[in-house]
Amino acid sequence: MAQSFGNIIRAGIATVPLTEFEIIERFFAAPGPQRSDVCLGIGDDAAIMQVPAGHDLVSCVDMLVRGQHFPEDMVAEDVGYRAMAVNLSDMAAMGAEPAWATLALSLPEPDESWLARFAEGLIGLAREHGVALVGGDTVKGPLVASVQMAGLVPSGTALRRDGAQPGDRLFVTGAPGEAAAGLALWQRGLRVPQGPAARLLRRFNRPQPRVAQGIDLRGIASACIDVSDGLAADLGHLVQASGIGAVIELESLPVSDELAEVADPMQARRYVLSGGDDYELCFAVPVRGLLDFERRARDWACAVTEIGEICDSPGLFARVCGEIEPLEEGGFDHFR
Amino acid sequence: MAQSFGNIIRAGIATVPLTEFEIIERFFAAPGPQRSDVCLGIGDDAAIMQVPAGHDLVSCVDMLVRGQHFPEDMVAEDVGYRAMAVNLSDMAAMGAEPAWATLALSLPEPDESWLARFAEGLIGLAREHGVALVGGDTVKGPLVASVQMAGLVPSGTALRRDGAQPGDRLFVTGAPGEAAAGLALWQRGLRVPQGPAARLLRRFNRPQPRVAQGIDLRGIASACIDVSDGLAADLGHLVQASGIGAVIELESLPVSDELAEVADPMQARRYVLSGGDDYELCFAVPVRGLLDFERRARDWACAVTEIGEICDSPGLFARVCGEIEPLEEGGFDHFR
Repeated sequence: MAQSFGNIIRAGIATVPLTEFEIIERFFAAPGPQRSDVCLGIGDDAAIMQVPAGHDLVSCVDMLVRGQHFPEDMVAEDVGYRAMAVNLSDMAAMGAEPAWATLALSLPEPDESWLARFAEGLIGLAREHGVALVGGDTVKGPLVASVQMAGLVPSGTALRRDGAQPGDRLFVTGAPGEAAAGLALWQRGLRVPQGPAARLLRRFNRPQPRVAQGIDLRGIASACIDVSDGLAADLGHLVQASGIGAVIELESLPVSDELAEVADPMQARRYVLSGGDDYELCFAVPVRGLLDFERRARDWACAVTEIGEICDSPGLFARVCGEIEPLEEGGFDHFR
Repeated sequence: MAQSFGNIIRAGIATVPLTEFEIIERFFAAPGPQRSDVCLGIGDDAAIMQVPAGHDLVSCVDMLVRGQHFPEDMVAEDVGYRAMAVNLSDMAAMGAEPAWATLALSLPEPDESWLARFAEGLIGLAREHGVALVGGDTVKGPLVASVQMAGLVPSGTALRRDGAQPGDRLFVTGAPGEAAAGLALWQRGLRVPQGPAARLLRRFNRPQPRVAQGIDLRGIASACIDVSDGLAADLGHLVQASGIGAVIELESLPVSDELAEVADPMQARRYVLSGGDDYELCFAVPVRGLLDFERRARDWACAVTEIGEICDSPGLFARVCGEIEPLEEGGFDHFR
């Protein structure tokens, strides 16, 4: 936009080899998966897609700022992967089948090697989930990546945060807290880890969004949220939206062997309750649906753990050794 | 995301009054227009919308970086307005009816007064066009605003860049170049202008996306693009996508009285051809559709000018005093 303005601002910058159009065309347009429901992809003022009859559209956006949402020295592939993963996790939380994404990318200069690796991480994960990158905007500025995603659900079947009822059982997928423990290792300077540290670091750098699990939970879960800000914080959002509360069985919280190897029991529990960025799903299942749920979850590629239940009293509570008390664990907030 | 990481990064920052959730709720959720096709808006992991049968979905994204796409000292209302306008202009270029938007906003601190004014500009324009803000992400970082928009067109009727044919007549709405002239005044320090300068500056700060005109051009225009990078540059994209060329009648280019007052004739023509940020539409109309087009354009609230025609030879050409020669005007590119 604003030619003269742009020229004035960038008067001191040497000519660089790639134009915006070349960047989009070369790194993001060609290698992505194609979908028959995309009438027009990258290259026009907007993309055109077909939404199948009998489906709702599910839409989300996430923005990642370098130094704020990922470490300054995170490799480009992992940044690209992350920008896609965080949105896939939102789709998972809604039970939606991810379909199309757009990318808004601000970067200081069109570094071809960085862009190629960023695109590899982003498009690689998109391909795994059948998501077509249909549009984007690349601009000059601080390193900020924002992906917007749209997905599909049969009408009226999307999972939400606000349907949980007292008595519903609470579950969490996988091993929450591992990513936060992995990040802590990274921040202590560990770069080429082995053994449990390697797995923890990989959980931070390559979180697996639970898309298939979210889709399986349609018609089963009464409420669902993805754990991006920490289990306690996100469960807090769920119970607030549902107007109820939850009791967590502290001794039921899943602590993986890897986590137990790098943290003492108290620290490990803190990671599980307050760590973020695992992109696990936390959800409530009414008692009448438990059998059906267990049947479906048997085929899941990830673990799932019952961690408590929904209660009448608003707020979060913990049960330890039979005693119930308020849960004292704040979540992550981007401005606190 | 990443609680521990976030805490470490922001260790030096004093506690500030607003959380991410409060920001979204307070400034963006409440005041926006409501639409009956939004099943679930701001407040969950994603929004849920209903796409009417027989319609295609049109999707775009634009990212604005402070100091790059708008001046450092632009007032917050105008920044918010601009973030919405640039996407509405993309919808206009597609002939789409804008429907839903999401906002990804990175800002250095949750300045309540700035946020209130930014939201006023953004939501005010959204309201004018019946667009519901259905989701968003607010994060801490450099000032970067990205709006994503989705709109609707009856299936198969979206305007594209690639349908122009030799012989089609070329048109542009309004007065391209005024915004660039207004920006130049701003950069020379003009803050409280009067007379023509006031109109030019307003054209930069409050561009009018041609949404109604784009919708009117469905079934009429063979190709359409919005003029964000400059008339010559964007027409260049259109002819490239259509695989043809265009001849511009230089003496037909619209130069408004205001533009003529602040620039000499050569300079004025340069603004018209190379200025950006007016968000006018440039489009081609086949000769057989001209009568129908003129009938519709009679009711438009903005001017429209015939500026040339599509030709066989690839590239852009200018006709001056009967002579045809290649047009020498580069457009704005974000990385050059």
